[in-house]
Amino acid sequence: MKKIKIVKIGGNIIDDENALDAFLQSFAVLKGPKVLVHGGGKLASRLAEQMQVPVEMIDGRRITNAETLDIITMVYAGKINKNMVAKLQRYGCNAVGFSGADGNTVVAEKRPVKTIDYGFVGDVIKVNTEVIKLLLEKEITVTFCAISYNENGQLFNTNADTIASEISIALSQDFDTELYYCFEKNGVLKDVENDDSVIQKIDPAYYQQLKDEGAIFEGMIPKLDNCFYALEHGVQNIHLGKPDMIFESKIKRTIITK
Amino acid sequence: MKKIKIVKIGGNIIDDENALDAFLQSFAVLKGPKVLVHGGGKLASRLAEQMQVPVEMIDGRRITNAETLDIITMVYAGKINKNMVAKLQRYGCNAVGFSGADGNTVVAEKRPVKTIDYGFVGDVIKVNTEVIKLLLEKEITVTFCAISYNENGQLFNTNADTIASEISIALSQDFDTELYYCFEKNGVLKDVENDDSVIQKIDPAYYQQLKDEGAIFEGMIPKLDNCFYALEHGVQNIHLGKPDMIFESKIKRTIITK
Repeated sequence: MKKIKIVKIGGNIIDDENALDAFLQSFAVLKGPKVLVHGGGKLASRLAEQMQVPVEMIDGRRITNAETLDIITMVYAGKINKNMVAKLQRYGCNAVGFSGADGNTVVAEKRPVKTIDYGFVGDVIKVNTEVIKLLLEKEITVTFCAISYNENGQLFNTNADTIASEISIALSQDFDTELYYCFEKNGVLKDVENDDSVIQKIDPAYYQQLKDEGAIFEGMIPKLDNCFYALEHGVQNIHLGKPDMIFESKIKRTIITK
Repeated sequence: MKKIKIVKIGGNIIDDENALDAFLQSFAVLKGPKVLVHGGGKLASRLAEQMQVPVEMIDGRRITNAETLDIITMVYAGKINKNMVAKLQRYGCNAVGFSGADGNTVVAEKRPVKTIDYGFVGDVIKVNTEVIKLLLEKEITVTFCAISYNENGQLFNTNADTIASEISIALSQDFDTELYYCFEKNGVLKDVENDDSVIQKIDPAYYQQLKDEGAIFEGMIPKLDNCFYALEHGVQNIHLGKPDMIFESKIKRTIITK
């Protein structure tokens, strides 16, 4: 099968104009079919502040009310996504920018209310790859923001890591799929203060051991759960680390394996 | 040649949630290839106010500075475009939402500075139809917001009427092209106060006469200039009137002919 790279970039890259530009320049010339996934960094919170839209929190968790959803849609699908697409074009990569509604690609359902109603937060239930593949075949890169939708035409705020893994799983039917999670560290660290303490390989048994030892910091657990879920569902390879790992094979990273 | 409809909807429809929903519901089931073009209505001005971004005016004309461009990108390409695409999906029409950067479709240059520097305002220099046609062939509707871009990856605010006519001209190479400008009137009116005074047909000679008589109000002149330009460059038919004219052939409208 043909190889494909799905690259998710974290908020720290989006928040740093120069870092983002350097990343897009390298990403643009990457050979072969590729998909980019991004969230929103701090821009959405900054806009909410500027618009004086209060952050609604329940039990310490942010709720996506209608105003917050509008802000996220404006920032993710508008400002960030369109500027990224324009930059990719500049660097010679024909690209289009999608939300999950575009091409009916990322279908979700509202997160069920158990104790907390998260508002307009969607859990992905299906990724339709027809339109993505149509574009990829013509060497057009699809750039997804972290927005899904449902069949009633409701947009949803959705975790960008999950969107990346669900798209990767769906594309693994037709491609040998490599998923890259890019963030500000060299990978999963044994010592969160030491960027050289990268764990080079994590399989499920070792993951369990690391969790038992309390060696993995909290925010990393949903990320790694996502990775193992993707591997169980057809994704071939998953890499975690700084963006440079995509372009240079010798750079440190963590590889997640079955 | 196969027929195509290019439909531009005005701000008054976008500003009225129910009218927009009714329009999208009818548009979604319209047979044959179709393209939708929209601007932003009053939402962008409202957001600018909420963000306390001052409107920069020179000689009574609004200037698109960097902050205003961000607002336009957020509102047009984000909030309006993505919600429209989600609604079209809901009503059974597979659609994608584009700015001019997406698929390298609408390329512009910064409006040259003569006496006024309009800032990030772009004049369209080329429409590339490859990606649009690729999608149309698969019965996917492309929904354009009024944003173009240049080869340096700079986004531009661009008049939605112009975007609609330039896309129509480019597509007329491959399609028998019908262009619809939808707004709040029944068409071009002889008496601007009387919605029944629709002029049914305007050709270039009659247009000149109407201008000489001062019978056409000011805002209509660039719109009609746009129409005649499009007709001269390959567009088959142009209709001006209320959105219903697209769906019901008997409804009043103005037809512009060569």
